[in-house]
Amino acid sequence: MIGIKSIASYVPVEGLNNYAQGAKFGKDQDFILGKIGSTFLPRKDAGQETSDLCVEAAKALFAANPSLSLESIDALIVVTQNGDAEGLPHTAAIVQHKLGLPTHVAAFDISLGCSGYVYGIYAMKGFMEAAGLKNGLLITADPYSKIVDPEDRNTTMLFGDAATATWMGEGAAWQLGKSSFGTDGGGAEHLKVSDGVFFMNGRQVFNFALLKVPAHLRQLLEASRLGADDIDLFCIHQGSAAIVDAVARRFEEDKSETAEKFVKDMVETGNTVSSSIPLLLERHVLGSSHKRVALSGFGVGLSWGSAIIERQD
Amino acid sequence: MIGIKSIASYVPVEGLNNYAQGAKFGKDQDFILGKIGSTFLPRKDAGQETSDLCVEAAKALFAANPSLSLESIDALIVVTQNGDAEGLPHTAAIVQHKLGLPTHVAAFDISLGCSGYVYGIYAMKGFMEAAGLKNGLLITADPYSKIVDPEDRNTTMLFGDAATATWMGEGAAWQLGKSSFGTDGGGAEHLKVSDGVFFMNGRQVFNFALLKVPAHLRQLLEASRLGADDIDLFCIHQGSAAIVDAVARRFEEDKSETAEKFVKDMVETGNTVSSSIPLLLERHVLGSSHKRVALSGFGVGLSWGSAIIERQD
Repeated sequence: MIGIKSIASYVPVEGLNNYAQGAKFGKDQDFILGKIGSTFLPRKDAGQETSDLCVEAAKALFAANPSLSLESIDALIVVTQNGDAEGLPHTAAIVQHKLGLPTHVAAFDISLGCSGYVYGIYAMKGFMEAAGLKNGLLITADPYSKIVDPEDRNTTMLFGDAATATWMGEGAAWQLGKSSFGTDGGGAEHLKVSDGVFFMNGRQVFNFALLKVPAHLRQLLEASRLGADDIDLFCIHQGSAAIVDAVARRFEEDKSETAEKFVKDMVETGNTVSSSIPLLLERHVLGSSHKRVALSGFGVGLSWGSAIIERQD
Repeated sequence: MIGIKSIASYVPVEGLNNYAQGAKFGKDQDFILGKIGSTFLPRKDAGQETSDLCVEAAKALFAANPSLSLESIDALIVVTQNGDAEGLPHTAAIVQHKLGLPTHVAAFDISLGCSGYVYGIYAMKGFMEAAGLKNGLLITADPYSKIVDPEDRNTTMLFGDAATATWMGEGAAWQLGKSSFGTDGGGAEHLKVSDGVFFMNGRQVFNFALLKVPAHLRQLLEASRLGADDIDLFCIHQGSAAIVDAVARRFEEDKSETAEKFVKDMVETGNTVSSSIPLLLERHVLGSSHKRVALSGFGVGLSWGSAIIERQD
């Protein structure tokens, strides 16, 4: 059974002081920290392409796992909607070459936004098992600095650039349990790019998240015959501090101890799209004593996906 | 085990007379039919989006399979590098809405070119098995008329617009056997889009196909302990008549009867990118008495994938 063996990340050191950005738009520090959730937004260099972020995250993964060789990688998926090229070629092919992976690697991109990591781990696990592959790199890299208008107060204070790399393979400590997915293209217009510029209807997206995510997580727990007490940690997409707080409160209104299990860690990263959940797993789960963790990603599409992962060792 | 249950397609009725196009570039009818392989190139209406082609193919699939209901679909993958939007949202979300699929569908796009169908069937099978899903729609739609320059003699005589829809699920007549994949981003520059226009280095792509595909197919047969005699039909990507002929001859130079098993059927469609292999399967395999068929797709990336599918009933 293919599972999650290791996660590493690349977060650019340079970036924007979000208090300064907030001041420009008349937002005080309480708003920036309490509602947006991020005082700093990492930004890639202008010369860095999406594939370069992928390569940095993968290099960090190889550095952390000396037993993993480039030659042993036989699957590569890049989750992005802001790849290097205009449509083609796919970014995964460019990463294969820049990283020096062997040409026997099966590589493709998955186009998804903030739900991408939850879909991605099942797509990678399933593809590897169906094709008989052994070592997969699942990379997330969706640098919204490419598309966010710095004058758009609805988006420029939210997003940070980052990339993550997840090693998936046999004998993994973390196995994938039940999952549940959903799509509503009727809301596609609420998160889109037109003429190269990102548009978000923040109110609609907030309402969607609050309506969908707590109920979806609850249904997944019921289908898994688990209660909230059986989950050690909830790692949900870090859309904004306000979204995480609202979903946590709505999930189980009576139990404040459950709400406290919803990790919030985006002060120095911002909303990193499909990288937000693996960043949480890297920092709060893989090296921890937790046994069972719930994930939920939601956003562009509209699309959502929730899953339970469990420690096997 | 998830396999291939049914395939349907949508090929626009309108299009270009390729003899007329050839005449414009000083190419005679022998060249157009013998080397290019297509006398007619289907073209979508200007008002049709990629998602509309997907919907047409899916509707044909539902019409051919009255037992399949919209409500029963729980997975949707669109293989495209020319989707509706600029990066986001993904086309699969738009198709979910236009087709009226339920919101419990897991939906994403895979970014791959001419190798996309071979990757796609393993990605769909694997994702469905990993996530416990029952009925998947794998759609290919990559309308190159969006990006081909009508004045570019290297590309405008080659590509046709089309879409296909494959129903994957339990109890399927066709099961997926061994597969093999590869990627060489060192050749990414040979097939790319810049400033909205497609560029292809035809000589490099031809050489790549001739170098890679016959050897890759042979390795796959060896790994499967099969000989060319055990394969009833070879359905390889219809890049051009010249490529299919050259790959067939190179595959087994001594045996002309093997070369004859390489299907060539692109006179009225052109190179339809990731739709070329499922079009061959729809027309020459699913309703036939064949038992074992080899597939090979190759192109953008550079990327290639080969597989063997086998009839179970």
